[in-house]
Amino acid sequence: MTDEGADKLTQGMSKDGGPAVVLVKPQMGENIGAAARAMFNFSLTELLLVAPRDGWPNAKAIAMAAGAAKVAEAAQVFDSTKSALSGFQYVIACTARDRDMAKPAFTPERAAQELRARHEAGQKVALVFGAEASGLENEDISLMDAILTIPANPEFSSLNLGQAVLLCGYEWMKAADQTAPESRGRGEATPASREALVQLFEHLEEALIHSNFLMLEEKRPAMVQNIRAMLMRAELTEQEVRTWRGMIKSLQRATPRKG
Amino acid sequence: MTDEGADKLTQGMSKDGGPAVVLVKPQMGENIGAAARAMFNFSLTELLLVAPRDGWPNAKAIAMAAGAAKVAEAAQVFDSTKSALSGFQYVIACTARDRDMAKPAFTPERAAQELRARHEAGQKVALVFGAEASGLENEDISLMDAILTIPANPEFSSLNLGQAVLLCGYEWMKAADQTAPESRGRGEATPASREALVQLFEHLEEALIHSNFLMLEEKRPAMVQNIRAMLMRAELTEQEVRTWRGMIKSLQRATPRKG
Repeated sequence: MTDEGADKLTQGMSKDGGPAVVLVKPQMGENIGAAARAMFNFSLTELLLVAPRDGWPNAKAIAMAAGAAKVAEAAQVFDSTKSALSGFQYVIACTARDRDMAKPAFTPERAAQELRARHEAGQKVALVFGAEASGLENEDISLMDAILTIPANPEFSSLNLGQAVLLCGYEWMKAADQTAPESRGRGEATPASREALVQLFEHLEEALIHSNFLMLEEKRPAMVQNIRAMLMRAELTEQEVRTWRGMIKSLQRATPRKG
Repeated sequence: MTDEGADKLTQGMSKDGGPAVVLVKPQMGENIGAAARAMFNFSLTELLLVAPRDGWPNAKAIAMAAGAAKVAEAAQVFDSTKSALSGFQYVIACTARDRDMAKPAFTPERAAQELRARHEAGQKVALVFGAEASGLENEDISLMDAILTIPANPEFSSLNLGQAVLLCGYEWMKAADQTAPESRGRGEATPASREALVQLFEHLEEALIHSNFLMLEEKRPAMVQNIRAMLMRAELTEQEVRTWRGMIKSLQRATPRKG
C-alpha cells in the first residue's frame, strides 16, 4: 500500500485532519517534540504554539519529534492565546484542576466525541494545553468552550505534556465513526469564530467599565470570567454575535434614566 | 481527605489494586521507570520484570519513576515469561502486530473491561508488554489468553513502552466506573427559575425598546425570540440572572455617547 500510504501521509498533513493542538507557553523543546509525536501517532498534524519559552524553531523539539518532525516543523507561532484561537469555532482546554469556571467539564472521551461531531459538521476545532508546570491561566480558560480533565490516580495524577496530548489524540482516533452529530437546532448557522467572540467580550467589558458595572478593579477579573462563561455557554453564531453587539451599542446610546 | 488519601495510597500499593504489569525483556532502565510512572498514574502498582537486560535493581529506572519509585522498587524479577505468569488466571498481551494467533484480539477499551470483570470476580489478571524493539515472541504469546492492539496512525504507529502502559492503564481506570456524571461546571448553583428568566427577558426587552433596538414593531417578535433563545441556551443560574439584570441596568444608566 505504498501509493495509498503516500496519499494518506499528504492527506494527514492537511489541515482537515482533525483538531488543532495549541500549546500555550510550552517550556522545553523536548516536550513540544513529544507532543508532536503523540499528535502524529493519532494522525493529528496541526500544531500551534503560543509564546514558546525558548523561541522557535527549536532544534530539540524537532529532534524529539523524530518521525513526526514535519508536524513540529509546520508549527505556527503566535504571541497570545487570543490570536492563536481567533480562527477557531470550538475549543476545549485540557486542565488538571477543577476550575469551577461555569463551563462544561468533559472526560477525554466525551470531549473527543464533541470535537469529532463538530469537526464533521465543518467547524474548526482545537485542543489547548497549558505550560508544563503552571497550566493555563484563567484568562486563557475564559476563551474556551469547555474543559477536559484526564482521570488519574488522585495520589499521582501528574502527566507530562506529551502524555496528555497522547491520551487526547487516542480518544480522538477512537471517536471516529461515531458520527451522528447532535443537532443544535440552529440549522446551517455558522458558529462564531473565536475572534468575533473576543470582540464581543471586549466590547461588552468596555461598555460595562464605562457604565461602572465593572467599577471595582479587584473584582473585575472574576466578574469578566463569569460573564464570558455565560456567553460562551450560549454557543453563539456569527449572526448572534452581531445581534449582541447591536444590543450593547443600543443600550449604551439610550438616554439615561432619572433616579 | 488526608486519612482517606493515606488509606488509598496503602491500598493502592497492595496487590489487589488491579492487573499486574509484566514487562518481558525490557531494555533501558528509563523505560521501566516510565512504565512504573504510567502504571501509578492509574493506580496500578504490581510490576513484574522478565529478564531485564541491564539487571535489577536499576538506578535509572528508579530515577525515572520519580513519584512512582516505590512501584519500581517493589518490582519482582523472573527468568522467564512462563514463571512470571504462573500465578495468573487471565493474561492479555499488548502487541502492535496482528499475530493471527487464533486468540481474541481486543481494543484497549475492550481489554480493560474484560480485565475489570475478571478482577472483580476475584481472578488474578495481568497485562504483558514485550521488549521495546522486538515485542513479544510467539512462544510468549502462546501463554496469553488474548491480545490487545492500540489503534494508531498506520503511518506512524510506534509507541514506546511507557506510552503503551499509559494508554492501557488509562483504559483500566476508565473501565472502573462508567457512572461519573458529566459536570456542567457550576457545582451546586441553582438553575434559574422560569420566573426569573422571564423577568430577565422582559427587563432586557423593555430596555431594548427604550433604546430603539427593537424599534420596528413588525420585526420585534422574531428578534425577541432569537434573543430569548440565546439566553436560554446559556442555562443561567439564579445568580447569573441577577448579574445580567445588573449589567442591563448599568448600561442603561451610562452617559450616552456622542455620535
